[in-house]
Amino acid sequence: MNFLKKILKGDKLTIARVISDVENESNAKILEKIFPYTGKAYHIGITGPPGAGKSTLVNVIAKRLLEKNNKIGIIAVDPTSPFSGGALLGDRIRMTDLALNKNVFIRSMASRGSLGGLARKTIDAALVLDAAGMDYILIETIGVGQVELDIAEVCDTTVVILVPESGDSVQAMKAGLLEIADIIVVNKGDRDGVDRLLMELKFAFELREQKAGWDFPVLKTTATTEAGIDTLVFEIQNHQEYLNKSGRLEKERKAKLMRRINELVGDKIKLHLREKIIQKEELERIIDKVYERKLNPYNIADKIAKKMIKTRN
Amino acid sequence: MNFLKKILKGDKLTIARVISDVENESNAKILEKIFPYTGKAYHIGITGPPGAGKSTLVNVIAKRLLEKNNKIGIIAVDPTSPFSGGALLGDRIRMTDLALNKNVFIRSMASRGSLGGLARKTIDAALVLDAAGMDYILIETIGVGQVELDIAEVCDTTVVILVPESGDSVQAMKAGLLEIADIIVVNKGDRDGVDRLLMELKFAFELREQKAGWDFPVLKTTATTEAGIDTLVFEIQNHQEYLNKSGRLEKERKAKLMRRINELVGDKIKLHLREKIIQKEELERIIDKVYERKLNPYNIADKIAKKMIKTRN
Repeated sequence: MNFLKKILKGDKLTIARVISDVENESNAKILEKIFPYTGKAYHIGITGPPGAGKSTLVNVIAKRLLEKNNKIGIIAVDPTSPFSGGALLGDRIRMTDLALNKNVFIRSMASRGSLGGLARKTIDAALVLDAAGMDYILIETIGVGQVELDIAEVCDTTVVILVPESGDSVQAMKAGLLEIADIIVVNKGDRDGVDRLLMELKFAFELREQKAGWDFPVLKTTATTEAGIDTLVFEIQNHQEYLNKSGRLEKERKAKLMRRINELVGDKIKLHLREKIIQKEELERIIDKVYERKLNPYNIADKIAKKMIKTRN
Repeated sequence: MNFLKKILKGDKLTIARVISDVENESNAKILEKIFPYTGKAYHIGITGPPGAGKSTLVNVIAKRLLEKNNKIGIIAVDPTSPFSGGALLGDRIRMTDLALNKNVFIRSMASRGSLGGLARKTIDAALVLDAAGMDYILIETIGVGQVELDIAEVCDTTVVILVPESGDSVQAMKAGLLEIADIIVVNKGDRDGVDRLLMELKFAFELREQKAGWDFPVLKTTATTEAGIDTLVFEIQNHQEYLNKSGRLEKERKAKLMRRINELVGDKIKLHLREKIIQKEELERIIDKVYERKLNPYNIADKIAKKMIKTRN
C-alpha cells in the first residue's frame, strides 16, 4: 500500500512521517499528490500570550469535539506548549491521554531556533492532516508575530485567549490579536481583573469594523474546571455555520488559494532568476556596482523583471 | 531647496517627513533617489525580550557614541519602548534629552496592530537615516520573531540583551536569539541569577559554529548605573573593525543587496502577474477549479511561471 492510501486511511505512523518530510522539504511532490483530497477539514486557530492556558483549552475543546464523533488534528507551534514539550509534567500526561485516542493526531512544529518558513511548514502539515480525514484541525500558536498572522490566514475561525494577569505584554499584543480574532476568550476566569478585561475587550471589539452578520463573542472560561467551554465550542461551531451559510467560507478559502498560487509563482520565478536568467558572473558584476552605488537596486530589479517577463500576446 | 538636499544636510523635519512617506508607501521613488547616498552608516541591532532594559541600553550606547563625535540614528520597533511611547514617564524624559541633541535622530516605527511589512519599512527608514549622514543607526526590536530576524538581516552587529528574571519566555526565545547574536549582554547585572545565566550563555555560544576570527563576547551590564557599558561599546566597535578588516562587511552587505534585488524582482513580477499576465476572469475560473480540487495549485503555479518567464537567449 503506498503512502497516499495510508494517509487517506488515517494511518498515524505514515501521517507523522509525511509531515516530517514536508517539514524537511525533502519531498515537495507529496503536497501535490495530497492536494486533491483536501478542503474538508475545518481549521481553528488558538492563539495568545505565554501562560494564557492555550494548551489546556485546546485539550478541552478537542475532548468536546471528540464526543461529537469528530476526528481531530492538533498542531502546536507554541514552544511553551506541553504538546510541543515545553510545559509541566502534569499537563504533558493529560495530553498523552488525548494522543492515545485513535481519533486524535497531535503534532508539534519545532521552530529549531529560527522562525523562517515555520508558518509555511505548519500550513503544509495541516494539509496532510486535512487529507488524512480530520474534521477539525486545531492550530495552537503563541502570538502575535508574523508567523501567527500567516497561520491565522489559513484558519477558518481564530480564537484569541487572554488572561487578566498577563499585563503589559498583552497590552502590546492586544491590538494585533483583536485584528485576527473571530472569538475572544478571557481564560482563568476565577482570577482578579477578569471583569475589567472583559469590559475592555467588548469595548475594543465594538470599535472594530463590523463584519456583516457576525457579532464577535467575548467569552469567559476557566479551562482547568472546564467552566465556559460548552459556550466556547458552541460559538466556534456557530461561527463555522455562519461562514458556511453566508458563503464567506468559500469566498475566503478561494482568496487564500489565490494568494497561495501567487506565492508559489513567486517562488518558482525566484528559483528561475537564480538559476537561469542571469549568469552568476554577470550578477556578481552588477552587485559590485550596486555596492559601490554606481547602480541602483530599484532600476536593476525593474530591468531584470522586464527581461524575465513575456509580454502578453 | 529640494527634499534630497535637505536630507543630505541632515534636516530633521525633512527626515521625519520622508520616513513617514516611506512608511505609508506613498512615494516609492524616494528610495531610488536616496540610494546613491547610502552605504556609509553602521547598523547596530539591539534585541531581546520585554523588560530586558533595551531602551536604557540604547540610550547609554548612543551617549557614548555621541561623545566620540558620531551622528546617531535610533529606530525603535519595540511597542514597549519609551522611544515608541510604551514605557514609564521617567524613561521617556531621559529619551527626550537625547532627542533634543542635534546629532541624534529618534524614530519609532508603529506596528499599528499588524506586523506585515514592518521589517521592510524599518529597513527603508534606516536607508533614509543612512543618507542623512548618520554614522551609527541603532535599531531596537523586541524579539525574536520573523520581523526581528528580517531586521537583524540588515544589521552589521546584532546585540542580544537578556536578563536573569525573564524566565520561561526567554528560554523559548534563547535559541533563536543566539543564532542572530554577534554580542550577548546580560543586563541588570546586580540581580540574582546573573552568573548562572552568563555561564549558560557562554556554554551555548561555545556549541555554536564558530565564525573564523570572531569570539562571541558574553558581557554583563547594568544599564541604569552604566556599569559595563564601556566594554559593550568597545566590543561593538571591535566587531565593526573585525568585519571591516576581514572583508566580511563588504561580503555580507553584497549578499544583502543581492537578496534585496531578488525581493524587488519578485514584487514587480507579482504585480505584473496580477495586472497583466492573466485576465481576472480567467484567474477566477482557475481558482474555482482549484477550490473544487479539479486543478492543483502546484501545477497551476508552474504553468503560470512558465508562461511568464522568457527562456534565455
